[in-house]
Amino acid sequence: MSEPLRVAIAGLGTVGAGVIRLLESNGPLITRRAGRPIEVVAVSARDRAKDRGIDISGFDWVDDPVELAQHPRADVVLELVGGSDGPALALARAALEAGKGFVTANKAMIAHHGLELARQAEAQHAAMKFEAAVAGGVPVIKGLREGAAANEIARVYGILNGTCNYILSKMESEGSDFDAVLAEAQALGYAEADPGFDIDGVDAAHKLSILASLAFGTRPSFDDVAIGGVRHVIAADIAEAAALGYRIRLVGIAEADESGLFQRVHPYLVPMRHPLAHVQDSLNAVVAEGNYVGRLFFQGAGAGDGPTASAVVADLIDIARGEFGPPYAMPAESLADQRRADSGERTGRAYVRLNVVDKVGVLAEIAAAMRDAGVSIESLIQRGAAVDGSVMVVIVTHNGPERCVAQALKTLSGSSSLIGDAMWMHILGE
Amino acid sequence: MSEPLRVAIAGLGTVGAGVIRLLESNGPLITRRAGRPIEVVAVSARDRAKDRGIDISGFDWVDDPVELAQHPRADVVLELVGGSDGPALALARAALEAGKGFVTANKAMIAHHGLELARQAEAQHAAMKFEAAVAGGVPVIKGLREGAAANEIARVYGILNGTCNYILSKMESEGSDFDAVLAEAQALGYAEADPGFDIDGVDAAHKLSILASLAFGTRPSFDDVAIGGVRHVIAADIAEAAALGYRIRLVGIAEADESGLFQRVHPYLVPMRHPLAHVQDSLNAVVAEGNYVGRLFFQGAGAGDGPTASAVVADLIDIARGEFGPPYAMPAESLADQRRADSGERTGRAYVRLNVVDKVGVLAEIAAAMRDAGVSIESLIQRGAAVDGSVMVVIVTHNGPERCVAQALKTLSGSSSLIGDAMWMHILGE
Repeated sequence: MSEPLRVAIAGLGTVGAGVIRLLESNGPLITRRAGRPIEVVAVSARDRAKDRGIDISGFDWVDDPVELAQHPRADVVLELVGGSDGPALALARAALEAGKGFVTANKAMIAHHGLELARQAEAQHAAMKFEAAVAGGVPVIKGLREGAAANEIARVYGILNGTCNYILSKMESEGSDFDAVLAEAQALGYAEADPGFDIDGVDAAHKLSILASLAFGTRPSFDDVAIGGVRHVIAADIAEAAALGYRIRLVGIAEADESGLFQRVHPYLVPMRHPLAHVQDSLNAVVAEGNYVGRLFFQGAGAGDGPTASAVVADLIDIARGEFGPPYAMPAESLADQRRADSGERTGRAYVRLNVVDKVGVLAEIAAAMRDAGVSIESLIQRGAAVDGSVMVVIVTHNGPERCVAQALKTLSGSSSLIGDAMWMHILGE
Repeated sequence: MSEPLRVAIAGLGTVGAGVIRLLESNGPLITRRAGRPIEVVAVSARDRAKDRGIDISGFDWVDDPVELAQHPRADVVLELVGGSDGPALALARAALEAGKGFVTANKAMIAHHGLELARQAEAQHAAMKFEAAVAGGVPVIKGLREGAAANEIARVYGILNGTCNYILSKMESEGSDFDAVLAEAQALGYAEADPGFDIDGVDAAHKLSILASLAFGTRPSFDDVAIGGVRHVIAADIAEAAALGYRIRLVGIAEADESGLFQRVHPYLVPMRHPLAHVQDSLNAVVAEGNYVGRLFFQGAGAGDGPTASAVVADLIDIARGEFGPPYAMPAESLADQRRADSGERTGRAYVRLNVVDKVGVLAEIAAAMRDAGVSIESLIQRGAAVDGSVMVVIVTHNGPERCVAQALKTLSGSSSLIGDAMWMHILGE
């Protein structure tokens, strides 16, 4: 039997406890697959005495996570502390500095500091892996980094936040409004008490920037992601979309072409024939479109202690096998610095919902604004007035530049006919 | 720049030509991802002069594939000759004997001789990879071997034959009968002139036996796959299934439990909520259910020169990176010899379609046969008589042992009330 791979774990929340449980219950199988045992030697967390449902008495306890990162017996340090900076980052740097392998599930940290850490890992010839940072248990990083490695990727996109997908699925199946479903999700523990990170699209944007870098061989550039969330989707949007043959999903999408790198997280209308339309509840899914392989689709649980532990331990098994290379598939130095593509130059079809005053001439005003901006209307639906006297108008445009739609909405935003802001969603191309 | 990985290719059909085209067009990208160039040095095929749309003048031409396998400059031999034995197998053995890496897309050969070849590769510390053998461009072997490696897998199953899925999808969308769609598929080149291998389930069974070995750590055992095809599915089955909320798919399924290893390829009724129900046209898809990750779903193109070349070159990139281990994830010697589980002991729900004579007492006879065999009927649908006077009866059973359904059908098979054979399909559990 070969030497075990020895692991130090920082952070014993549900995922950390899940990893320890997994390594115990599937231990013999993992040893067969990895070629040697994977053994936890040391742990660190905030509260040593907390009951986690696991026995940690056999591991060295280290109070300071940075000290844990240098644990003399550890080959690999597993970071499950969370947060883009602070202790997580200090511990990552210390582990790589000490020449240890490094595994993390921390999307925020990888989105912001992944490049720096990859450089450090490469300089040390150390492993650095972060499969669990995107789409939880679904091996999408491996899928892009290795499975699709022979392809030029034109577009990578997917459903990257389970909380948003849960909310949108529930709104759809129950016809409820956003706030009601969010409250329900919070009560069930599917959404955080402070849900902004999820529902405003930041979490999905972290993951998207990681996928984009792997897909296109570009430097991760989280700051270049245009971010929108699901707060302003209403039950009527979902009903109108359904009537038109679409489901609404929060989609993170990245495209690379001669105009640069385009990255956006936003609610999209997804055609029913597209596999993303069938991703329900809190599942995650990623699509990669390669020039030889065509469309690859990966789906599974995007969060939770079991799936996340599965991805983390898959990384450990790769390291135990000696099967790892540069974290971003190619040396960090060789990642291209791609400029941000302007969304105004993108073309596509749009869904626009306006709440307007019920008076003569409003439709003419909307139609004129669209015409003047060069927006070609495919369909316009006006439903009867609501109890408050407002009228909902839904417009679906033909394919055209996004800047035209933006211009039309800018014109209308000054109008006294409009109640509140327009809701603009993109329609995902098949 | 590191030394290139040098490849000898045996077989220059559409896939071989696709691999050469891919390596040319995506060459610089592949070099960045692989860490070094991948270079074709020698080729072998039946007809040197044939126009393949690619320039092979820069490669050594070797008439004899076995001689090619020992080409002094080749690091890796790529087998695209096809066939479970004969030249393909001779060449595989020769390549491994010579200590070369070995890559193939040949499911038949891997299903029948994969274990022997893996032993040989391991003895030589040589790479052996066959991602393209299952689900074409979809990285499912990598997904099981590495992505889901931390999990005990309870069940692996999927749509493994694109021709059958194309036919079933078309029957569904057009309401046509099997023979008409098969003829159309043959005219379009989606089905072979001799389609038996595909439509009778043999091709899917080859792939299933490979997946099962990877998922469960068992020896590949193609002979233990119970095989059925799609020849006997009629338009009315698809319509009845749709009315009940199902789509019919040819599913290869493998389960491992205390009763042994169960492997079957057969038409299944797939619930509309299940992702396999949405796999259309010639796509392939695989589901793996792990004890930590839950349900993973992979989908993409299962055949064609581009997708197959993508998978083959992904294997070459792994080898160029030095990222390969035992072909079946664990040493071939350690793969368990699992006994075949008896289908009669499986439980599930069943769809049974009978064509019967339109006369008094037939329904009573059917119901009695079911009752006597212990089959509990969930629903029974009898449509009005057809022009030939026959009546179609469709029965959906409650969950129960398959042997009871088999017993009931055995009883009925002797009856003069029955016209032709009963059609029995399984209902895929959610």
